[in-house]
Amino acid sequence: MNTFGRIFRVSIFGESHGPAIGVVIDGVEPGLPLSEEDFMADIRRRKSGTPGTTPRIEEDRPEIVSGVFEGHTTGAPLTVLFRNGNTRSGDYELLRDVPRPGHADLVASIKTGGFNDPRGGGHFSGRMTLPVVAAGVVAKKVLSETVRMETEGHVAFSAKARIVELGGVTREEALGRSGKEVPDFELWAPEIEAAAAEGDSLGAVVECVVDGLPAALGEPFWDSAESLLAHAVFAIPGVRGVEFGDGFAASRMRGSEHNDRFVATGHGIVAPETNHAGGINGGLTNGNPIVFRVAFKPTSSIRKPQKTINMTEGEMTELVVPGRHDTCFALRTPVIVEAAAAIVLADLIDIA
Amino acid sequence: MNTFGRIFRVSIFGESHGPAIGVVIDGVEPGLPLSEEDFMADIRRRKSGTPGTTPRIEEDRPEIVSGVFEGHTTGAPLTVLFRNGNTRSGDYELLRDVPRPGHADLVASIKTGGFNDPRGGGHFSGRMTLPVVAAGVVAKKVLSETVRMETEGHVAFSAKARIVELGGVTREEALGRSGKEVPDFELWAPEIEAAAAEGDSLGAVVECVVDGLPAALGEPFWDSAESLLAHAVFAIPGVRGVEFGDGFAASRMRGSEHNDRFVATGHGIVAPETNHAGGINGGLTNGNPIVFRVAFKPTSSIRKPQKTINMTEGEMTELVVPGRHDTCFALRTPVIVEAAAAIVLADLIDIA
Amino acid sequence: MNTFGRIFRVSIFGESHGPAIGVVIDGVEPGLPLSEEDFMADIRRRKSGTPGTTPRIEEDRPEIVSGVFEGHTTGAPLTVLFRNGNTRSGDYELLRDVPRPGHADLVASIKTGGFNDPRGGGHFSGRMTLPVVAAGVVAKKVLSETVRMETEGHVAFSAKARIVELGGVTREEALGRSGKEVPDFELWAPEIEAAAAEGDSLGAVVECVVDGLPAALGEPFWDSAESLLAHAVFAIPGVRGVEFGDGFAASRMRGSEHNDRFVATGHGIVAPETNHAGGINGGLTNGNPIVFRVAFKPTSSIRKPQKTINMTEGEMTELVVPGRHDTCFALRTPVIVEAAAAIVLADLIDIA
Amino acid sequence: MNTFGRIFRVSIFGESHGPAIGVVIDGVEPGLPLSEEDFMADIRRRKSGTPGTTPRIEEDRPEIVSGVFEGHTTGAPLTVLFRNGNTRSGDYELLRDVPRPGHADLVASIKTGGFNDPRGGGHFSGRMTLPVVAAGVVAKKVLSETVRMETEGHVAFSAKARIVELGGVTREEALGRSGKEVPDFELWAPEIEAAAAEGDSLGAVVECVVDGLPAALGEPFWDSAESLLAHAVFAIPGVRGVEFGDGFAASRMRGSEHNDRFVATGHGIVAPETNHAGGINGGLTNGNPIVFRVAFKPTSSIRKPQKTINMTEGEMTELVVPGRHDTCFALRTPVIVEAAAAIVLADLIDIA
Repeated sequence: MNTFGRIFRVSIFGESHGPAIGVVIDGVEPGLPLSEEDFMADIRRRKSGTPGTTPRIEEDRPEIVSGVFEGHTTGAPLTVLFRNGNTRSGDYELLRDVPRPGHADLVASIKTGGFNDPRGGGHFSGRMTLPVVAAGVVAKKVLSETVRMETEGHVAFSAKARIVELGGVTREEALGRSGKEVPDFELWAPEIEAAAAEGDSLGAVVECVVDGLPAALGEPFWDSAESLLAHAVFAIPGVRGVEFGDGFAASRMRGSEHNDRFVATGHGIVAPETNHAGGINGGLTNGNPIVFRVAFKPTSSIRKPQKTINMTEGEMTELVVPGRHDTCFALRTPVIVEAAAAIVLADLIDIA
Repeated sequence: MNTFGRIFRVSIFGESHGPAIGVVIDGVEPGLPLSEEDFMADIRRRKSGTPGTTPRIEEDRPEIVSGVFEGHTTGAPLTVLFRNGNTRSGDYELLRDVPRPGHADLVASIKTGGFNDPRGGGHFSGRMTLPVVAAGVVAKKVLSETVRMETEGHVAFSAKARIVELGGVTREEALGRSGKEVPDFELWAPEIEAAAAEGDSLGAVVECVVDGLPAALGEPFWDSAESLLAHAVFAIPGVRGVEFGDGFAASRMRGSEHNDRFVATGHGIVAPETNHAGGINGGLTNGNPIVFRVAFKPTSSIRKPQKTINMTEGEMTELVVPGRHDTCFALRTPVIVEAAAAIVLADLIDIA
Repeated sequence: MNTFGRIFRVSIFGESHGPAIGVVIDGVEPGLPLSEEDFMADIRRRKSGTPGTTPRIEEDRPEIVSGVFEGHTTGAPLTVLFRNGNTRSGDYELLRDVPRPGHADLVASIKTGGFNDPRGGGHFSGRMTLPVVAAGVVAKKVLSETVRMETEGHVAFSAKARIVELGGVTREEALGRSGKEVPDFELWAPEIEAAAAEGDSLGAVVECVVDGLPAALGEPFWDSAESLLAHAVFAIPGVRGVEFGDGFAASRMRGSEHNDRFVATGHGIVAPETNHAGGINGGLTNGNPIVFRVAFKPTSSIRKPQKTINMTEGEMTELVVPGRHDTCFALRTPVIVEAAAAIVLADLIDIA
Repeated sequence: MNTFGRIFRVSIFGESHGPAIGVVIDGVEPGLPLSEEDFMADIRRRKSGTPGTTPRIEEDRPEIVSGVFEGHTTGAPLTVLFRNGNTRSGDYELLRDVPRPGHADLVASIKTGGFNDPRGGGHFSGRMTLPVVAAGVVAKKVLSETVRMETEGHVAFSAKARIVELGGVTREEALGRSGKEVPDFELWAPEIEAAAAEGDSLGAVVECVVDGLPAALGEPFWDSAESLLAHAVFAIPGVRGVEFGDGFAASRMRGSEHNDRFVATGHGIVAPETNHAGGINGGLTNGNPIVFRVAFKPTSSIRKPQKTINMTEGEMTELVVPGRHDTCFALRTPVIVEAAAAIVLADLIDIA
């Protein structure tokens, strides 16, 4: 099941070192302006996590294969393809024998009877988030256009995610230290450099705020807005937790603190005044911004030698994961979290 | 969309004060022994949160309406019905006008153009977790039987959830204080009584451990085991967060700490030695127990007066939510969390 | 999978001799007026096939269990229950051993490992068409209301099915013979009586015409309007063929005969002038009435002795199917065909 | 919704004159041997309908983009791409104004607000059957391998479709006339040449026989084997009717004629002796071959001038459909019908 959604449906395919990866998006409304250039801003954000490198952006160039005609979506399935630049097989045979701790190598091999493509993680690779970002671009367009039309231009849709904590240091702390806004990898440079020096890695927390949505998106119970958002977000490799509004802190609050009271707004709309619930009541959006946070684990691939097992020999061995790795892959995830959220919400706004 | 699952599919229906609520479960294997009595233990656990009361268990008596013949499942859709005992309409008109803070009253009314059943929350009621618990009983049977058969009786499936923190006090702290195991509502009696005395409410954290599953359940990306489990768990009313393994704490760890290393087990099975990942790698179960925690908000309905809006008059008013309320509804949720997890896993084990 | 549809979703459950059968309909718009009485006209039509009997209508009395409040749909899942009046077990043990030719007894037993409910066909019973008729009533209301609103009352939706051939005699022939409109079982009385006299049975062809739909319902390819209609109609027990427009005769026509030419209509709408295509082009409705025909086999249960096998003894035996049977069950199917069509089209109009 | 299936899931994308068309197949078991060459035999059959031409096979060359590693399926989504060779825009502007009778031009334009790709029918093109044939190749492999393994090589799966009537002349009649087996376009050469001479077109009936399947595939009611097969087959452009076993003729038979009696076979398996039901009882396969017939309309695009409307001018005009057309496109459909059937059955055998 590599498909997600009911009306706005996203299917991803491909392997890290296969000929290409891509996405088929079904249920896109006809008439949206869309070009390959439209994908580049978000694709660049996904690349931007690593300081001091030119991202190999040529590998991430989208080709629209179907669903667009004369610069507009046709309503037919929209397919975006990314050719894999460098697909040399390398020394992946090692990973057949010696599964990398924290990776899917071993379970993927069990699941497929050893027929999985092990090169670079194959279909389990973080590279699969690239077509997700592409789908997110389309989803954001659907949402922006729908909100614009339904509110006659009075409301603008937005989805913004950013790192709010990295290596245990909050954005506020890091900002206080740097004294000015700088790219995230500079903001947390001390933590990143320290971990990198030890061949180790770091995790982070991403917060996403979605604004401009109508009230009452979502369904009671199984398809609550939180259920669908968490479903999509937990699909991103490396996510360990998702919380809405006050999140885990809510479990330590009193009802009188946590309840948002309803107030009339200037335009006759009733919305909660505070946002402890994160913009959702009873599974339905309530008109407030949706706010959720996502915990990312530290990068699994580290230079530091790790104990693991050699499957063929049945004995413990020491593994230094080959290749170049992000010290903190979470730096690249805010745009992916936005994409996951937008994919869910484009589907909900289509159903509504 | 009140249906969840692909093969083992669970549809719930009903309103809190309608004639009945229930569940249709499709995709149940034929030949499972099943009687109405089998549901009672878990149904009683869902009732057990409130101290000092005889649960109105007569309202929660299940009727198997289809899918069972001569004490065994037939493979046809299995329907369980619960008649609603007390469906007097009461003073729900008040809630039409004055939405309860923290509840779905307002968004439900927006979603349905005012046609929702407002009595006791209608279809948004926490009472809808009763058919979910019933589906969980069937799911646990499917899982137990499948694991037993596939391992020829060597492995036993289990799913166990319990409160690990309530009102900010951990189970360990509470146990240290009480000196012995007692029912949860006694273990945290000081917190509960204090909040109740003020007409206020409390939240809690539930931890669920699922053991005995085969490795490699789940799919890469959209249908990762975490995605599906979080989807089902966030459907439970009042959930604010879900985390697996080290969860949010993982975002503050180094890779060398968080990675689980693989070791050979006595039976030639390779499993991670530690369980920071919570039993899942790359979206697939890895043979370790699945461990996740769920943050529940404090009960929304409180006796303490709350400011809210009178929709008809368009002016702020003060609401004392009518009726008897749990001070901490989370006390009743461990069996619901187990049910949600079992429903997901019964589907995954059917697909595998 | 006892569920059909994407937005307007219909799940049926129950067994012929179990406590009850029923249907859960998800995705019904809120605010439709609906009462139990609304189901009776179509339920009576499903009963009306048998001459000279008072249908045991008391067994077919619907109970709305959820989804309706104060006479209107709420948007929550709508459940309709039918208690089974006479559920004595009877001599079904015979059918365990001696499968009835033309019935599902044997394959049902193979599928379930013998755990199916054999009484009256269990979940495979023609009685399962009763909840389908109920869902059809709701679907017709959705369609009528949607068409009325979208056309501001200028167009009326209708779905009308009737027998056009029975026992090889067309309606025109039968009408010519009778000289006046009479109930179908009188119109074809000579054929029915002749077959009944021999303990044998008859088939028939039903034609359904659906009018008033907007153009462009359906999807290219997999979810073409024909695909979805045929899917639903072939679910009705006893269907052997489905054809649209000219149907099988089209395969013997020239393109110049079969093509419908487009003409402008008075209201500026362009529609085909003729209807060889049966109202669908490229999988999408074209504004013309949808016209399709359904071939029903002769009733499988006959009084005439039939050779079959005794499964326990492994030897051929002669079976006289016990019970009272319709000579031509197809007489009862027009309302079921309408229901199947309406269920599909209510879903398509919701998606559009 | 360009996706079909529950476990074995087929999604098609592309437009006739876009950069490429293709298919993503999810749920393929890992370990199946598969190469691009494996697709060629069926692809050639789809081309073979036109006499005296070298099919432009270079346009139909498959590229496996994902899901295969070292010559075997990996279990990840399998994507096959076909580049469109000749995508010059041509004179499609004409078809914007003057919809071709029998085609989807007009309804596609209504559905998309005029944003559909009109070149060669766009996403509605018969060219979309090419990726369906590719999916059929994979489905047949899944079925062959599953049947082989489950029966330890004793049973072989086969799906064979062929023209049984063309232009009103049956295969038997045509064979009697030709005196020997020749390609279909020669067998019916007199009819084809006569129609072509008039610039007109012909329809045909295809019969498909599927053998070697286990009993009890399919579900009661909505997902009956007939429902799913008809759903997939009616997705093929130009289908007007589908019938199983005796089909429409069954409606003119007596029950005593139509019922298949069960007999014991040599291997202790009980199967119907005759096959009036077409291999399906109560929606489930019964062990007999599945037999169904498909009515194809005559080719819509004809040289003969046709009356239609000019949408811009609102006046009737005469259209000679530009381009080269098959006199009887149905000659190319048997392999497509096989593919549709195999796609359905691969899904059913995966679920079973």
